[in-house]
Amino acid sequence: MSEPYLPTLLTATPEEGFQLAIKLSRLGVKFTQPSAETRERLRADYADNADSLTAASQVVAINFQTVAQANGFWRD
Amino acid sequence: MSEPYLPTLLTATPEEGFQLAIKLSRLGVKFTQPSAETRERLRADYADNADSLTAASQVVAINFQTVAQANGFWRD
Amino acid sequence: MSEPYLPTLLTATPEEGFQLAIKLSRLGVKFTQPSAETRERLRADYADNADSLTAASQVVAINFQTVAQANGFWRD
Amino acid sequence: MSEPYLPTLLTATPEEGFQLAIKLSRLGVKFTQPSAETRERLRADYADNADSLTAASQVVAINFQTVAQANGFWRD
Amino acid sequence: MSEPYLPTLLTATPEEGFQLAIKLSRLGVKFTQPSAETRERLRADYADNADSLTAASQVVAINFQTVAQANGFWRD
Amino acid sequence: MSEPYLPTLLTATPEEGFQLAIKLSRLGVKFTQPSAETRERLRADYADNADSLTAASQVVAINFQTVAQANGFWRD
Repeated sequence: MSEPYLPTLLTATPEEGFQLAIKLSRLGVKFTQPSAETRERLRADYADNADSLTAASQVVAINFQTVAQANGFWRD
Repeated sequence: MSEPYLPTLLTATPEEGFQLAIKLSRLGVKFTQPSAETRERLRADYADNADSLTAASQVVAINFQTVAQANGFWRD
Repeated sequence: MSEPYLPTLLTATPEEGFQLAIKLSRLGVKFTQPSAETRERLRADYADNADSLTAASQVVAINFQTVAQANGFWRD
Repeated sequence: MSEPYLPTLLTATPEEGFQLAIKLSRLGVKFTQPSAETRERLRADYADNADSLTAASQVVAINFQTVAQANGFWRD
Repeated sequence: MSEPYLPTLLTATPEEGFQLAIKLSRLGVKFTQPSAETRERLRADYADNADSLTAASQVVAINFQTVAQANGFWRD
Repeated sequence: MSEPYLPTLLTATPEEGFQLAIKLSRLGVKFTQPSAETRERLRADYADNADSLTAASQVVAINFQTVAQANGFWRD
């Protein structure tokens, strides 16, 4: 990845923050499995498995904690 | 999703905060498996499996940490 | 659930806080599996499985973090 | 349990705090499986399983976060 | 490991912080399985398993919480 | 264990903090399985299993959060 992929944790809204949490979760996978082709093939499996989806949602939840805290929970 | 799905993390009460934590947990699944039909089908399985339910409750717990902190734990 | 089930995160003592953490963990299950009959049936299984019990204790631990922080760790 | 089982989260030392984290982890199990006999029987299994031991250590780690924070990390 | 492997948690950018989180996750493995040969062999397996990749991403997410907090979330 | 095993959470450097996080993770196992012989036997298994290593790294990550926070992230 030559272009910047994570310039900031700050987002304008909670929704953008949630999208960033999803992005962070995928980045965590990408750096372990760099092949987009393999990731796409695996996706077919786990997107059809309830426990895999729950596990994916958990990683997003952890990353969203980080992003929400970074943004002061968008309180203002 | 064209309409805003996460306008704020602030809620009036702990109960509404808990409901928001559940919503966040489901959003984490929805963005991985966008097909409502598939999610509904999978739901039948994991809602009848004790460990799957515990895992789901764990994701809610993590998201509730975020929401509770955002709301200053509704101390006032 | 028509009556309020989560009026506050504040408790008088750590013990009551721990009980609230258990309640939150069960609420996380209840909203995914609303049938009390099904939950009772599943309970028989996972209460006799060491790993299921550890997983349940983990959800309680996460919720207890939230409750303890809400209560300033009952330091006073 | 009629006697108080969790009077405070404050401990004099990190070691006592770690012991309290272990106690909290076991309490999380105890309230799900109240039978001491069943817990003892299950213990024989999971104490001989590497992944079960790692999972148990994870619950202790989460509870230790809470206890350590409650005690200001015993910095003084 | 004779050379310093973790001189600081401070990084100039979120991207470098994310790389540090990945490094910390691998260090956690390295100290349990010191053989680079074994780790490389195991990598072939888990990099082709969706649930293993999600689990790896979760460890990165936890370490990224630590690194992000250490760096004040790179807010300035 | 008659000698003190956890005198403080404070360490001079991030590296020592990471080592302490590993120690805490092992203590969590030790108190559940006190037999060093059994632990050594189990180690042979899980050190050769990718998912077990990821799980071990996760426990270290959680404990490292605690240690890093205790040390103000070694910012100075």
